Amino acid sequence: MSADGSKRKRPGAKAASSAAGSPPARVRTVKEIAAAANVSVATVSRALQRPEIVSEATRLHIQEVVKRLGYTPNALARNLRTARTRLVVALLPDITNPFFSEVIRGIEQVAHESGYSVLLGETQSSLVREQAYADMVAARQADGIITMSHRVPSIPITGRLPVVNACEYVKDSLISSVYVDNVAAAGVAVDYLVTLGHRDIAFIAGPPASPICIDREQGYRLALERANIPLNPALTATGDFSIEAGERAIELLLSQGQSFSAVFCSNDEMAIGAMRALAARGLRVPEDVSVVGFDDIRFARYMTPALTTVAQPKNALGREAMTMLIELLNDPEVPPRKRVLSADLVVRGSVAPYLPRRK
Amino acid sequence: MSADGSKRKRPGAKAASSAAGSPPARVRTVKEIAAAANVSVATVSRALQRPEIVSEATRLHIQEVVKRLGYTPNALARNLRTARTRLVVALLPDITNPFFSEVIRGIEQVAHESGYSVLLGETQSSLVREQAYADMVAARQADGIITMSHRVPSIPITGRLPVVNACEYVKDSLISSVYVDNVAAAGVAVDYLVTLGHRDIAFIAGPPASPICIDREQGYRLALERANIPLNPALTATGDFSIEAGERAIELLLSQGQSFSAVFCSNDEMAIGAMRALAARGLRVPEDVSVVGFDDIRFARYMTPALTTVAQPKNALGREAMTMLIELLNDPEVPPRKRVLSADLVVRGSVAPYLPRRK
Repeated sequence: MSADGSKRKRPGAKAASSAAGSPPARVRTVKEIAAAANVSVATVSRALQRPEIVSEATRLHIQEVVKRLGYTPNALARNLRTARTRLVVALLPDITNPFFSEVIRGIEQVAHESGYSVLLGETQSSLVREQAYADMVAARQADGIITMSHRVPSIPITGRLPVVNACEYVKDSLISSVYVDNVAAAGVAVDYLVTLGHRDIAFIAGPPASPICIDREQGYRLALERANIPLNPALTATGDFSIEAGERAIELLLSQGQSFSAVFCSNDEMAIGAMRALAARGLRVPEDVSVVGFDDIRFARYMTPALTTVAQPKNALGREAMTMLIELLNDPEVPPRKRVLSADLVVRGSVAPYLPRRK
Repeated sequence: MSADGSKRKRPGAKAASSAAGSPPARVRTVKEIAAAANVSVATVSRALQRPEIVSEATRLHIQEVVKRLGYTPNALARNLRTARTRLVVALLPDITNPFFSEVIRGIEQVAHESGYSVLLGETQSSLVREQAYADMVAARQADGIITMSHRVPSIPITGRLPVVNACEYVKDSLISSVYVDNVAAAGVAVDYLVTLGHRDIAFIAGPPASPICIDREQGYRLALERANIPLNPALTATGDFSIEAGERAIELLLSQGQSFSAVFCSNDEMAIGAMRALAARGLRVPEDVSVVGFDDIRFARYMTPALTTVAQPKNALGREAMTMLIELLNDPEVPPRKRVLSADLVVRGSVAPYLPRRK
């Protein structure tokens, strides 16, 4: 205990034993209240924390003593006793990506309904920052973590980690996770392009360290296979999910002289960048190149043309992740599970049937 | 102090005086560690919290004692002693508005540099939710609040409220605040439209309860006055900052038969909605109607045409707000101040010189 803690405590102890008058504003312990009210500490705790389970008479009596002595319930002290902070950390790589803000809104809604608060941690994909938040759980500053990254931070505690993965998952891990069927969803998007006659379909992949990015690429490959279109590895570029990465990927493909009539992008921001880069090269979307994104962020429909994209159920992903974390916090024995939601293709103006180029 | 705090302290004191064996897993106090290591409490604190400033020998010695006695540093206990949680609450009305996410990133950066974490509170403009977060400060679950709303939540504590206002301000309040000169910035935007020959300039106002919205409207009015253009109140519509509100405002003005060659919108999302509604009515931007927004969210430049807008220094607003809050937490006597940043007009493709309509 610190010098400060001792100082606060000592005058109180003295006052209790000598019955000398102490300043009325002094913080009282539950024990002192219990002694003055002639009831047990447990009864005082119940009366303060769950008054509905204490008899009316007891409650009023304790209230009167509390009022007279001036006990101030201290949330930190209370949290210390229950070992619950009612805080959860939501880790996300990039707060400015609207995809995550809608997932967070879902997390927030369930947290709010259940008496939890959400501590936001933007990691900018830095391991050091991820670990700093994980350490908060080890230090009991937060109860658990929902991570929207493909890494599960290591928490030096024994037993089940109070961690849930949202939107992403980690292969072969015991971490519960909620995400969409990325292989199937990407496949549906590429199938649709194939149906419209496209055969030279470029792909902008996300960071290969992430299993969901590998799944989206797998969906793309499987759809080509289904259509008997040989995979042309030169038509795949990789980006970091930013708008700028989408621009760079298109510039790279065009500078290499690649020819394609459609491009499937692993997220909407890269698709927005792709549309910008195509326009800058004088290529019209969708007349010259069709563009498909992934996520359905709220700005997707306001692009010109409006972006065709795979709509992830963002709110549901957040709500389900927080529900899973609360289950886990209430019962560490609950078996780990992977919950896979479905994602729909939303068809808008950025895709058109294949027409042979006139040039 | 809590019952738990007393429990922890007393057996420790007993053990020290009677030297009776106690269970090895019991939580030890810094005092016990200090006594066993024959050093001061301050030295133990330093060794545990800032080992780099303690000599190698002392550190190893204390580590050995800690290992033997089993002291577990508990962040909650530490916070309780220092009465600091190192948590601040950032209240924002709408997490999906990219304007706020960039301000939060600025808050987060300074928080991270200073050893604070940011608790995110989305209020959806609900007073009840704002108050719930304010109560966390009263209950010492958080040190202070940065609010991005025009309301300052009431915190039942005596003395200076640990609250800073970001992006918004409250008139005649003692709350420190950082925001842009909205009157001047709106004026520059409307002056620019006037310079291009526009005289029938519509205005989409934000919620009138917010002082910054009144300021933006004031800037619009003053610019018309400077140009000797009589104010036509029928050309002003009001929205709640959402994309949909921008669409509705334009639909309202057009359904009323209002004629205008330009529209100035109080934020970018309403401007994006306005562009969509104009296009839906067959009006071209900027040939038929010029559109100007406010904020410069990252999607503004990716609209077609790219949106001309007033660029708020979002990162700087967040950084400055967090810096002010830390100053206030470190010294409650620091005088309240209003810091006004400047905002620049960013000219893009959504504005063109006035041409008389051909129809």
